[in-house]
Amino acid sequence: MTLEAIRYRAGSLQILNQLLLPHQTAYDEVRSVQDAYEAIKSMKVRGAPAIAIVGCLSLAVELRAGAGGDDPLTFIRESLCHLTSARPTAVNMGRAARELMEFAENESMEKNSEQLRESVVAWIEAMLVRDVNDNKKIGNFGAQHILSGVPRDSVTILTHCNTGSLATAGYGTALGVVRSLHSLGRLKRVYCTETRPYNQGSRLTAYEAVAEGIPATLITDSMAALTMREMNITAVVVGADRVVANGDTANKVGTYQLAIAAKHHGIPFYVAAPSTSCDLSLESGRDIVIEVRPPEELTSINGVPIAAQGIEVWNPAFDVTPHQLITGGIITELGVFLPSELQAALTGRLTAL
Amino acid sequence: MTLEAIRYRAGSLQILNQLLLPHQTAYDEVRSVQDAYEAIKSMKVRGAPAIAIVGCLSLAVELRAGAGGDDPLTFIRESLCHLTSARPTAVNMGRAARELMEFAENESMEKNSEQLRESVVAWIEAMLVRDVNDNKKIGNFGAQHILSGVPRDSVTILTHCNTGSLATAGYGTALGVVRSLHSLGRLKRVYCTETRPYNQGSRLTAYEAVAEGIPATLITDSMAALTMREMNITAVVVGADRVVANGDTANKVGTYQLAIAAKHHGIPFYVAAPSTSCDLSLESGRDIVIEVRPPEELTSINGVPIAAQGIEVWNPAFDVTPHQLITGGIITELGVFLPSELQAALTGRLTAL
Repeated sequence: MTLEAIRYRAGSLQILNQLLLPHQTAYDEVRSVQDAYEAIKSMKVRGAPAIAIVGCLSLAVELRAGAGGDDPLTFIRESLCHLTSARPTAVNMGRAARELMEFAENESMEKNSEQLRESVVAWIEAMLVRDVNDNKKIGNFGAQHILSGVPRDSVTILTHCNTGSLATAGYGTALGVVRSLHSLGRLKRVYCTETRPYNQGSRLTAYEAVAEGIPATLITDSMAALTMREMNITAVVVGADRVVANGDTANKVGTYQLAIAAKHHGIPFYVAAPSTSCDLSLESGRDIVIEVRPPEELTSINGVPIAAQGIEVWNPAFDVTPHQLITGGIITELGVFLPSELQAALTGRLTAL
Repeated sequence: MTLEAIRYRAGSLQILNQLLLPHQTAYDEVRSVQDAYEAIKSMKVRGAPAIAIVGCLSLAVELRAGAGGDDPLTFIRESLCHLTSARPTAVNMGRAARELMEFAENESMEKNSEQLRESVVAWIEAMLVRDVNDNKKIGNFGAQHILSGVPRDSVTILTHCNTGSLATAGYGTALGVVRSLHSLGRLKRVYCTETRPYNQGSRLTAYEAVAEGIPATLITDSMAALTMREMNITAVVVGADRVVANGDTANKVGTYQLAIAAKHHGIPFYVAAPSTSCDLSLESGRDIVIEVRPPEELTSINGVPIAAQGIEVWNPAFDVTPHQLITGGIITELGVFLPSELQAALTGRLTAL
């Protein structure tokens, strides 16, 4: 079984409502940019690559229906601006918005409204295909890099959050690496943290693993260091919401702590992310704005209170892992790079190892 | 308001059912050793010191009602053996059982059944008083030690699990240190991890903090390292289920990870525990048996599933923090000691600093 989190067929978009997983598999129709904004904000869809794809596809849906009338460019600009504001830490939506806007502006110089709509829709639909292909490359590069250190033996991976089919257009980034290792017959087991407070690990990664028969064990976030010590972990592999020029990486809160524990145990720590998640415009992680989410995510589950009433809460959604702790490397569709090599690699001055 | 987790009045014992907190404040009657065994096993009462006290008090309840008939010694022995098996990692119950048994055996040489029952009951009732007094000493020693490094300023503490009134006969160990700092007017804030999978932090520590007006902020376990980096944490203070001769400490799972993160940030890491939680019969943490609990603790909350069906789970209840990571010291009712000094201090060869 392959999970299909995003269903797109020429002008019709449905997304798997991830808030209902793992209890219920239900697809929600996304008919407009506003539908997509709300789905992203409420985390029906999450994962930096998936956010960008669903955002852009919702625009394609409206454009195919003729949105923007005589001035599609203004409609496109306003839509992209709105979509980018839904979850500010993930860079992919912002990057897609900039690239698409630049493309649309160029196209608008020589095309009428109808032609402009068509070419923007084609650009967006191509993005969906490219994302899956990029993920497969990430999976292969990552698997090869990890295996290069352990000839013949099978490996045990620890991962965080959900970075699989449900976080991307398909296949996944960090979980794509796990998928590749599994399909090569070299994966002994993957340990998944439950990833509080939103439980993407226990709800989503566990769901994908069970669905595809990947040997997986769920642990609490607090058990990661103990697991590293006791379970012979070969590598820790996580995704990224944003990788900046020096390799500092914003990802789901808890990643920083995993990187510290991996360092303590001498276990290589990898970040898996498409180049679209890399943001060379920021020098270091200090420049990344971290989204702080509502207290209720910690104090209740499905509306049922689980914490003492009246307690104050701090709920940052992400943290920044300094590049010094990314000891394994950054796995992209172009190859695996050390944080110090990333900038050169992405600007074409360095080829894959 | 002072929380009363254990209500004992000459032969009648009630415990606050901690499984119902924070939603409901209900006291359960404990009429027998078997009632106490079940309350401990199901975690209606938890925390190593509280387990020992409730276990012994349940024995006092039965003895006051004449249990054991003509052979109270056999009844006492079998009861203590049963109680000790309920949660094997916490050392306090085992230690109390050994000490009480030795006392009972000596008493039985010169006393009849009725007199033996009376003196054992008196021993147990004195234990309740001593535990609260010891905790207050722990609180004071710990607060003074932490403050000695930061003249005048107020301090910010990070703690794990619940080690307060709800885990002890009253006042608390690590949370007792927090209480002392607060009553001295020197506590800026305490950060409490929610402590998955049983949420003792969000349910119990948060409940105590709100009830007593201690400034507290709840975070997920995964946010601890980020909190250390961002929130100017003065010290990390945790409790212990068992401290062995070299200072290695078994405590609620996640403690090891906190200690690694504290070391990484240069923040002193303290263990607060009465000497009854110290077990000099074990040389090192490698000898501690770690209780593995049921998968359902991770996969459901209050009976409602929260994880993908069919996922495997590893659920160790405790981990062992090596003494090298206990950089602040071990806070006991005798004083604060480095792990390397513990053995000498507890055997009377070293006095408090």
